[in-house]
Amino acid sequence: MSIQIGILGYGNLGRGVEYAVDACADMELAAVFTRRNPASLQIRKTGVPVVSVDEINAWKDKIDVLILCGGSATDLPVQTPKYAKDFNVVDSFDTHARIPEHFAAVDAASKEGGNVAVVSVGWDPGLFSLSRAYASAILPDGKDYTFWGRGVSQGHSDAIRRIVGVKNAKQYTVPVKAALEAVRSGRNPVLSTREKHTRECFVVLEDGADAARIEQEIKTMPNYFADYDTTVHFIDETEFNEKHGGLAHGGFVIRSGATGDNGAHRHVMELSLKLDSNPEFTASVLIAYARAVYRLSAEGQKGAKTVLDIPPAYLSPKTNEELRASLL
Amino acid sequence: MSIQIGILGYGNLGRGVEYAVDACADMELAAVFTRRNPASLQIRKTGVPVVSVDEINAWKDKIDVLILCGGSATDLPVQTPKYAKDFNVVDSFDTHARIPEHFAAVDAASKEGGNVAVVSVGWDPGLFSLSRAYASAILPDGKDYTFWGRGVSQGHSDAIRRIVGVKNAKQYTVPVKAALEAVRSGRNPVLSTREKHTRECFVVLEDGADAARIEQEIKTMPNYFADYDTTVHFIDETEFNEKHGGLAHGGFVIRSGATGDNGAHRHVMELSLKLDSNPEFTASVLIAYARAVYRLSAEGQKGAKTVLDIPPAYLSPKTNEELRASLL
Repeated sequence: MSIQIGILGYGNLGRGVEYAVDACADMELAAVFTRRNPASLQIRKTGVPVVSVDEINAWKDKIDVLILCGGSATDLPVQTPKYAKDFNVVDSFDTHARIPEHFAAVDAASKEGGNVAVVSVGWDPGLFSLSRAYASAILPDGKDYTFWGRGVSQGHSDAIRRIVGVKNAKQYTVPVKAALEAVRSGRNPVLSTREKHTRECFVVLEDGADAARIEQEIKTMPNYFADYDTTVHFIDETEFNEKHGGLAHGGFVIRSGATGDNGAHRHVMELSLKLDSNPEFTASVLIAYARAVYRLSAEGQKGAKTVLDIPPAYLSPKTNEELRASLL
Repeated sequence: MSIQIGILGYGNLGRGVEYAVDACADMELAAVFTRRNPASLQIRKTGVPVVSVDEINAWKDKIDVLILCGGSATDLPVQTPKYAKDFNVVDSFDTHARIPEHFAAVDAASKEGGNVAVVSVGWDPGLFSLSRAYASAILPDGKDYTFWGRGVSQGHSDAIRRIVGVKNAKQYTVPVKAALEAVRSGRNPVLSTREKHTRECFVVLEDGADAARIEQEIKTMPNYFADYDTTVHFIDETEFNEKHGGLAHGGFVIRSGATGDNGAHRHVMELSLKLDSNPEFTASVLIAYARAVYRLSAEGQKGAKTVLDIPPAYLSPKTNEELRASLL
């Protein structure tokens, strides 16, 4: 009997989960739940029911793990605690500063329901967090650096689109090569925000909009752009649609540290990700952790966990014996 | 009360463990055990007893975790099962093909003694195994590549030294840049042994030895060199001692895989390590897992484990709350 997966929310991430389940021989997509009118939603897979989220309770015994594919701003803070009462769940909650409170709410709900929940799964938070945890435990005398990109920041693109006169916009976060190389050299440089990343914006204007004013508004926007070297390119809608529809992303987590006699020996550990599709890769991570959730729940475990709490072997369809023979 | 660490075997790895314990505020070196005459062994730290391994049983209640720093060829297959009966242990057993039988022997012994053992800790096996496990679970439709170097292979250096007429030798394993770049591009190339690594040898001859014959013997040595492009440099002893005393190493684990519509989107995950001192870095990994062993034992767990079985949070001196707030 394969692991029965439910998807709640059929946006980019939900579609990525649909693909990721297909890639796993031990899993099956049981249903897609939506807040929209189910009749209006066409999913890729034939034969899988699309169900109103209002009817989700009827599926309690038919879903092993429910993947919550909503956004971190308003969806997941409500949805994850709510559904963790009735389902084993995985989410990708990524508002770093609010993870402790989110974890606490989900932990209480999942314990009340006797379920397992894994929150903040993906690549950052997620794989990057794992890398930071392993590397800092191994090289206590060292320093962590995280770089993002080149990739699309949804939040920054949204911020530009809210400016009057902007029809469409996409913002790329770009790591500064010189900073990356300085970190890789093991010199443990002190880097300002401006020295680590630049921001590159592609903007389509409304007819008659004032490009100079908009460029100025972008470059001086506090929190989002003021602390960065920002480039703004105005392009027409055709070029925008042709060249900026992708969702590629990636990044680097580097720890550089020292061991031995007065720190004589330096070591550099680096995880790098180059992703053609941020949502599809994130979905693939969610699905690997869904397998872990299924197993933890089968063992009788309860409550919220993060990637830091889960043994790597739980993510793999292979047995422990196979893993020891093939991967160690 | 800090975690009391014992070291068995005071070679390069044992000395690395001594440094690694110093770097951890929650640990203390309790004793160094040796097969040599303890009076003949001068360790770096003052005030730490050097004890004959024959007297190790008197230390059963004074050591929380014993770090086994012997070699994989003959020491660890005997030592790890033997000492796992009386101590929580960590070893770096790295004969990949024999890990399953080593694990089984250590598992039986540690369960009999009610102890926890973690075997095959280090970077390969170890961190590279973790990387392969995470990446293959996340991108099932993909391919793993492991490259080693540039770094010293002890086994290959030994093999050269066994040739008649060779006074000293060091062999560096070097990853081929073009192969690395092909893998990083996501093209999933099929690579022969020869295409992945070259071998570079620095050899000091005995007086009157036949360089041409020795070069030929090295380059045609089955298993060790015959399948590789090998370069042999003959140098004098002064240059050898000046330039080839280091123990730097490193390597790359890359998984390249596809997701989405007919694998339309490609993703590349890469872990890279650049290590000034292979034994000191390996020792730092052993010590992070010693912390995990201590905790698992305190929870009442028993038996053998590998890095694949241990939640990352167990390696860190931080609490789960601190980890969630700072590293996720």
